[in-house]
Amino acid sequence: MCDICVMNAVKEKMLSRRDFFRASLATAAAATVGGIITTPPAMAAGHGEVVDMTHTYDETFPTYFGTPGFSKEAVFNFADNGFNVFNLSINEHTGTHIDAPLHFSADGASVDEIPISDLVVPLCVVHIHERAANDPNAQVTPDDLKSWIAANGPIPDKACVAMHSGWDAKTGGAGFRNADDAGVMHFPGFHIEATQMLLEETNAAALAVDSLSLDHGPSADFATHYAWLPTGRYGIECLAGLAKVPVAGATLVVGAPVHKGGSGGPSRIFAMV
Amino acid sequence: MCDICVMNAVKEKMLSRRDFFRASLATAAAATVGGIITTPPAMAAGHGEVVDMTHTYDETFPTYFGTPGFSKEAVFNFADNGFNVFNLSINEHTGTHIDAPLHFSADGASVDEIPISDLVVPLCVVHIHERAANDPNAQVTPDDLKSWIAANGPIPDKACVAMHSGWDAKTGGAGFRNADDAGVMHFPGFHIEATQMLLEETNAAALAVDSLSLDHGPSADFATHYAWLPTGRYGIECLAGLAKVPVAGATLVVGAPVHKGGSGGPSRIFAMV
Repeated sequence: MCDICVMNAVKEKMLSRRDFFRASLATAAAATVGGIITTPPAMAAGHGEVVDMTHTYDETFPTYFGTPGFSKEAVFNFADNGFNVFNLSINEHTGTHIDAPLHFSADGASVDEIPISDLVVPLCVVHIHERAANDPNAQVTPDDLKSWIAANGPIPDKACVAMHSGWDAKTGGAGFRNADDAGVMHFPGFHIEATQMLLEETNAAALAVDSLSLDHGPSADFATHYAWLPTGRYGIECLAGLAKVPVAGATLVVGAPVHKGGSGGPSRIFAMV
Repeated sequence: MCDICVMNAVKEKMLSRRDFFRASLATAAAATVGGIITTPPAMAAGHGEVVDMTHTYDETFPTYFGTPGFSKEAVFNFADNGFNVFNLSINEHTGTHIDAPLHFSADGASVDEIPISDLVVPLCVVHIHERAANDPNAQVTPDDLKSWIAANGPIPDKACVAMHSGWDAKTGGAGFRNADDAGVMHFPGFHIEATQMLLEETNAAALAVDSLSLDHGPSADFATHYAWLPTGRYGIECLAGLAKVPVAGATLVVGAPVHKGGSGGPSRIFAMV
């Protein structure tokens, strides 16, 4: 083979054995079918598939405090005015939303100050849904993180480490908050020891959960919130779609809101796989 | 050359002449430096660079009607409660925001119903900033679109066609609304003939402007709004960052909000270049 052929062959081989780059490959390597090179539409967008990681929401979406986090009021309507406009009233911590560092600190970064380099990041999915099916208070532990690392390699720089507990399937009913007779909620979250491990041993940018809080439901001290957010890292709560994406290799695109000085807010989040 | 080498050579050639795929190429083709194949960190994220296309906003951000479109009120504060939470009051058409089909139709798609396939799309930037510097009522015309197509090829499927008028630099002052003594605003927008051309000759999904409205400031009939939105297509107003991205080849990622039944709303928007 000529030099360029050898180079291409090596390149192909290197790329093909890196699962992490599958999406890029699917994107940029034109598909060859019967010797005809085709360029699928997905190439244009620079990705293979986009997965929506966001719950739609209205006044019925469950919230931490149990009261509606959203309402809307028409200020113009099509019949009378020829167009529709609503005013929205939104508690920042409603729906699929961000916890900015400011949420649990006196003067941490507000949601509009989270660097863009922390918003388009590698996604690591830690599955605890089998355990959580039997124990609603299940938590992500250091052992869960060690298992992920053993299977997938180190947590990438700036990663979002996400807990998939299966809770995203419960948003339509009381099971999402899962409050007992005393009002104590029972849902999964990150154990403080796992949070400490991520702080000490990785450069992860974000924690994400498919439940209502980074801390599990019965937490009385918000240990994970207080350990994680004041360091300048952020959180995502009520994330959807974690069952549809690979445990490693996807890129999370976090459309955090940009109202100035906010402690967080509803966000549109995509995964590119 | 062997068959695979010929195929690779053809593939390289096909890819290299398609500006549209530059981003994908930059992503997936491992850089070869002195015969060493390197895999830059950006590959992991499936893109070369991410550009923020979103204005941060608060109660001072200029609005179409000239009244504040946003306010926030603390419901918990760190000093008293150990954490911060705000309630937000937001007019949907504030800041960098979406116009959903429902904005100018009786029963068009609401903002949560815009298909995800319309939200991660090729970005086409039409520069009229030189003309707009002398004429604040400048509009994107069919000739502007023809010039773009002559230079860059057909408008891609599902594209967002964006007007860059330079207006994004004016959000800090009265020049953004640019109202005269009679209250008539003067800023650039899409001419109805350009809008009709895009409707009839392309499969574009979205129009975007860096000014306050898809229609230019003095419009009395909202011709572009009424032609575009009821067809199921959407709009983006007050887009930022258009001077920082290529005229063709970037992918726009539109983090539209997902409150049910909305006519639009503030959005986080990125370009991947």
